[in-house]
Amino acid sequence: MGKALIIGAGGVASVVVHKCCQVPDVFEEICIASRTLAKCDALKEKLDGGRTKIQTAKVDADNTDEVVALIKSFGPDVVINVALPYQDLAIMDACLATGVHYVDTANYEPPDVPKFEYKWQWAYKERFEKAGLTALLGSGFDPGVTGVFVAYAQKHHFDEIHSIDIVDANGGDHGYPFATNFNPEINIREITANGRYWENGEWIETAPLEFKKTYDLPEIGPKNIYLLYHEELESLAVNIKGLKKIRFWMTFSDNYINHLKVLENVGMTSIEPIMYEGKEIIPLQFLKEILPDPASLGPRTVGKTNIGCIIQGIKDGKPKTYYVYNVCDHQECYKEVGSQAISYTTGVPAMIGAMLVMKGLWKKPGVFNVEEFDPDPFMDALNKYGLPWKEDFAPVLLDPAEVHA
Amino acid sequence: MGKALIIGAGGVASVVVHKCCQVPDVFEEICIASRTLAKCDALKEKLDGGRTKIQTAKVDADNTDEVVALIKSFGPDVVINVALPYQDLAIMDACLATGVHYVDTANYEPPDVPKFEYKWQWAYKERFEKAGLTALLGSGFDPGVTGVFVAYAQKHHFDEIHSIDIVDANGGDHGYPFATNFNPEINIREITANGRYWENGEWIETAPLEFKKTYDLPEIGPKNIYLLYHEELESLAVNIKGLKKIRFWMTFSDNYINHLKVLENVGMTSIEPIMYEGKEIIPLQFLKEILPDPASLGPRTVGKTNIGCIIQGIKDGKPKTYYVYNVCDHQECYKEVGSQAISYTTGVPAMIGAMLVMKGLWKKPGVFNVEEFDPDPFMDALNKYGLPWKEDFAPVLLDPAEVHA
Repeated sequence: MGKALIIGAGGVASVVVHKCCQVPDVFEEICIASRTLAKCDALKEKLDGGRTKIQTAKVDADNTDEVVALIKSFGPDVVINVALPYQDLAIMDACLATGVHYVDTANYEPPDVPKFEYKWQWAYKERFEKAGLTALLGSGFDPGVTGVFVAYAQKHHFDEIHSIDIVDANGGDHGYPFATNFNPEINIREITANGRYWENGEWIETAPLEFKKTYDLPEIGPKNIYLLYHEELESLAVNIKGLKKIRFWMTFSDNYINHLKVLENVGMTSIEPIMYEGKEIIPLQFLKEILPDPASLGPRTVGKTNIGCIIQGIKDGKPKTYYVYNVCDHQECYKEVGSQAISYTTGVPAMIGAMLVMKGLWKKPGVFNVEEFDPDPFMDALNKYGLPWKEDFAPVLLDPAEVHA
Repeated sequence: MGKALIIGAGGVASVVVHKCCQVPDVFEEICIASRTLAKCDALKEKLDGGRTKIQTAKVDADNTDEVVALIKSFGPDVVINVALPYQDLAIMDACLATGVHYVDTANYEPPDVPKFEYKWQWAYKERFEKAGLTALLGSGFDPGVTGVFVAYAQKHHFDEIHSIDIVDANGGDHGYPFATNFNPEINIREITANGRYWENGEWIETAPLEFKKTYDLPEIGPKNIYLLYHEELESLAVNIKGLKKIRFWMTFSDNYINHLKVLENVGMTSIEPIMYEGKEIIPLQFLKEILPDPASLGPRTVGKTNIGCIIQGIKDGKPKTYYVYNVCDHQECYKEVGSQAISYTTGVPAMIGAMLVMKGLWKKPGVFNVEEFDPDPFMDALNKYGLPWKEDFAPVLLDPAEVHA
């Protein structure tokens, strides 16, 4: 069918490349491009020999001109952006300049103000409309599949959706006393940032980790979950009409929080440089250096993730509840693509989003979040490409007292 | 009366200097000597103007010849060694070479094998005997006052002592989430080393922090205490005839242990260098750099220490129990000498030991631990010089079930 340019060569990009190669009728040719050519070449070497033709390129994704030149030389139908969130706008600019569709998995953040917000990307709406191009934002798992789950519930199970609780649980165990799945800066930000949720048209801010519940998740058991802000809340609060409340919950173990808090207490998570033997050292950077390499966690992580949406609303005049979720096994992912479930659950939906754009099923001019498209082909593809979902029509609710018609 | 050479210029040395200056009839002249002359000069500047004449000198206490030359030029009656434990033997050698008495507060440790043991210093016994010189070992608080407490109990309250529990509690609060009172390496060794106690003529080893009790200490309240090895156990087990059991207990808060364990888990307490941006960095050294400076804790620490001995035995054919302890207030110490109770409780007994040697009350040829002398003048001096003690003849026991005649 066509060509995709994949920008990025980290854990998620690796999954995207593996999965594109499983669908060679759609992804006839791919180009893997990143700042570090050797990483792209290593991926190509692993996957070469199938029906998808692979090439690689070196590109600085911060530099629109470089991306434009690469797109012109390779000629893709779509760019799959799995680089850093700081680079979203530069890559969108390049797509507009060259007339190519755009897919990403995480919203733009200005490098100096860490803040999840869609406003910068939504501001491209008119330009993509005029260019007749599709920009599909946040096609990972969360954001991504969580929004598709909500759109699917809206289409098939509810007349009105009143509340959504997204629950993201990682029941994986890497066997180290402490390690982080990816960048420890992001992990630390998750537990030290204020939480936020949306209710009756307003954002309500919480203290960090202020809201905690224990939830018994299918296939992984009871976990402590904490209310956090997460970027899909912003788009779902806009796109799901009649919604009264939406929250996001993530699991953290007591051990994990304890380690991060102690490290914060002693100053090891600080980004203020310390003078040490005549050299400036940033404590957080040194901490990264002594912690286990996140890349080493894949082969040793066992257990499962469970991410899903607990939805309440009205169907045929009666209150209804619906829980739709995916369970993903770290070791099975690792066997299939050499990455654990954290990367797998993000990379598979990125491939699916790009595939639906290329097939024309999710192609319309403008900038869109996943819940703005027909969820059915995406839900089918999840079952087919490694992220099967399950439904429960009588889930335990996080606020059972609130159920009413 | 005479002259004392004080080697060392740290927290304990500062207290020793302050206290010597409070007894100018005994300490007519002192010399403060250390590797860093500026520290000695700073102490002199603070204390100058009283009746005790103060001079300072630069000396490398590892180098016996340098110490010999300094002793020859200053001509002290006694050397008070409050330098590093690694330097005890070099300083004892210098005392033998020059015919000067010796007092210290902590037993010798070979720099490469961290191990508390008296064998190296006890091996000097014959040489000090032949030279007609006194070497008084371990005249701090623990070891030191704890041994004097036991000798006092032996002299006045018991026919036979059967068991001794030394309890060292620091109820101080510096207001930081985590900080160490002194060298974090030593703190970490305390909680990660195996424990050891002596019972029925044998040493029994325990896992680190294996034995934990809660004890309600006079004036500081209930604390978690943990069984550790501590150096006075070795000499008391030898010197107290008829003893059946001796143990040492120290308080650690849950918060303190948690912080040290997390730091150990992530590798921050390791002394194995890490390559970081082309430079070898020892994690523990970097940790020291980011933790609050121990010297900054003095002015902000509030609360009290309580160190004492719970002793059980026989008097006039009947079982008897006796608890003798000192309570020391961090802020009062700081007001008096500019150091908190940890340094104060070590420095005052060092001055007292040296004073008793100079007065001839604790002078006999050989190498001795404090419990081998008459405790009465030392106990009187404790009351007079800032470490008053209290007695309890019906203390709560750590193993009440074991009491028998």
